Amino acid sequence: MYYLGIDLGGTNIAAGIVDENYNILKKGSVPTLASRPIDEVMTDMANLCKNLLAEMNLTVDDVEYAGIASPGTCNSETGVVEFSNNIVMYNYPIADVLKAKLGVKKVYIDNDANAAALAEALAGAAKGASSAIMITLGTGVGGGIVVDGKIYSGFNHAGAELGHIVIEKGGRQCTCGRRGCFETYSSATGLINMTKEKMEKNPDSLMWKLSEAAGKVSGKTAFQAKRQGDAAGAEVVDEYIEYLALGLTNIVNIFQPEVLCIGGGICNEGEYLMAPIREIVAKENFAHNSPNQTVIKRAALGNDAGILGAAVLGM
Amino acid sequence: MYYLGIDLGGTNIAAGIVDENYNILKKGSVPTLASRPIDEVMTDMANLCKNLLAEMNLTVDDVEYAGIASPGTCNSETGVVEFSNNIVMYNYPIADVLKAKLGVKKVYIDNDANAAALAEALAGAAKGASSAIMITLGTGVGGGIVVDGKIYSGFNHAGAELGHIVIEKGGRQCTCGRRGCFETYSSATGLINMTKEKMEKNPDSLMWKLSEAAGKVSGKTAFQAKRQGDAAGAEVVDEYIEYLALGLTNIVNIFQPEVLCIGGGICNEGEYLMAPIREIVAKENFAHNSPNQTVIKRAALGNDAGILGAAVLGM
Repeated sequence: MYYLGIDLGGTNIAAGIVDENYNILKKGSVPTLASRPIDEVMTDMANLCKNLLAEMNLTVDDVEYAGIASPGTCNSETGVVEFSNNIVMYNYPIADVLKAKLGVKKVYIDNDANAAALAEALAGAAKGASSAIMITLGTGVGGGIVVDGKIYSGFNHAGAELGHIVIEKGGRQCTCGRRGCFETYSSATGLINMTKEKMEKNPDSLMWKLSEAAGKVSGKTAFQAKRQGDAAGAEVVDEYIEYLALGLTNIVNIFQPEVLCIGGGICNEGEYLMAPIREIVAKENFAHNSPNQTVIKRAALGNDAGILGAAVLGM
Repeated sequence: MYYLGIDLGGTNIAAGIVDENYNILKKGSVPTLASRPIDEVMTDMANLCKNLLAEMNLTVDDVEYAGIASPGTCNSETGVVEFSNNIVMYNYPIADVLKAKLGVKKVYIDNDANAAALAEALAGAAKGASSAIMITLGTGVGGGIVVDGKIYSGFNHAGAELGHIVIEKGGRQCTCGRRGCFETYSSATGLINMTKEKMEKNPDSLMWKLSEAAGKVSGKTAFQAKRQGDAAGAEVVDEYIEYLALGLTNIVNIFQPEVLCIGGGICNEGEYLMAPIREIVAKENFAHNSPNQTVIKRAALGNDAGILGAAVLGM
């Protein structure tokens, strides 16, 4: 049996044909061009799916259902995106629109961070775990909660905003309106802000050269500088890890998940990032004396998590 | 059908005979005397249950099962208290011990905060809610998570420690070893600490007279002073509410529960406490634009929540 998984992103619409063993048999993408009317975006989404099917000599009748991983507040019961500000949608019946445009039997939807967490829980780093939390360190900090193979997102589908836990009252301004949210420190954006601030105070830091060579200050700048012995770079990395581990310890105290997955580009730092985080969380979490400790892992599915997560929404 | 609910507290063991409609038909209590060997505590627990049954002309055969709400990390699958430091237990098979001493068919156990949350979700302030969080403002801040009528406590039964979310990095020292946990600000203990500190800085505050008259500084002192126009008292209350609302907003962002129940003695301040909290959370939570907002309520079951929660563990 075949399933269509669609990852509606701000830059690209990615879609894949997935089998019941979570294999992506075929995938492709088209630009979202998010500023145009949503109906045009949906037409391109449907055409992308039709093309993928044609390339595999399949028709829409071979597909059990399509799933959409969308930004915003997604009502998984009604198939309506209640609110999204990136790709602008307000009470938009995205499932019905795709059903009409594509002719598929059924369309499931969920929020992209939730879908990615479900994919990791079913087929990725948290495969087989009774409870899994996924944290994505990107422009913001995304969260997903999966318990017994089911997404938890609250009675209004707007929960799991794990980046919006204030960890420093009165701290950095967050886009959500509050101050001191976890994501203002632990997102890639937060890391870049910390890096720039430290550079301003340290005109001799290696970070100046590294960022000049790379063309910009990125989430890698401080890590690279630290590895090359730069003191200011080390201070940025250590501070970043301190905040990230603090926020993750909070999440472990709340959920004590069997697996905590960390995704996003910053994870490419590998054990430079993961090892100190594991050490701090193991020491600081409330149940540190328990023989059963949350396993902290890098997410395994990368960019495919959205497609896969969407494809499994109805399984 | 009858169920025995037992609330094992640090001061008293309370027990009740409960029917299938969540009515407590008979209840009683005996002192825990927590410093003695746990086996003696369990003998008294069994005798308390036998006496309650006898008073209703019932025998243990009329009881479907007994439930125990215990402090500490309770493995609900094995019936073992893995760790409790208040009443000292370490891998203690509390369910088997009670079964042997009482002769009851089956014994269920769970953590007391979790059991109280379940009681509120099934029979109290969150009755009928698809998701409910209970926060108890006591010596510490207790948390309980109930989703679809089931307690969630993580894969190692040690989760739902909602008082141990750091909300102010580097802040007040917490008993858990970290600094700035929600409970260091929002527990009764936290409020009393804030009150004492403010009194030291304000020798003319009415709080001195009020606490002298009451024999001690309590969680009521600042609230009383504020109501009587005392500026320092008002500052304590306002600060307390600010921290509490911040922590509750975090919890709403994480769970978006249908109902958030607040319990503990401080709730006796009623709308003096609840009204400003509702206002702040409604404004500050991430999904404040959603038409579906978490309802914040006072817990309804008071001291009976432990007995009731224990009694429904097997339902």
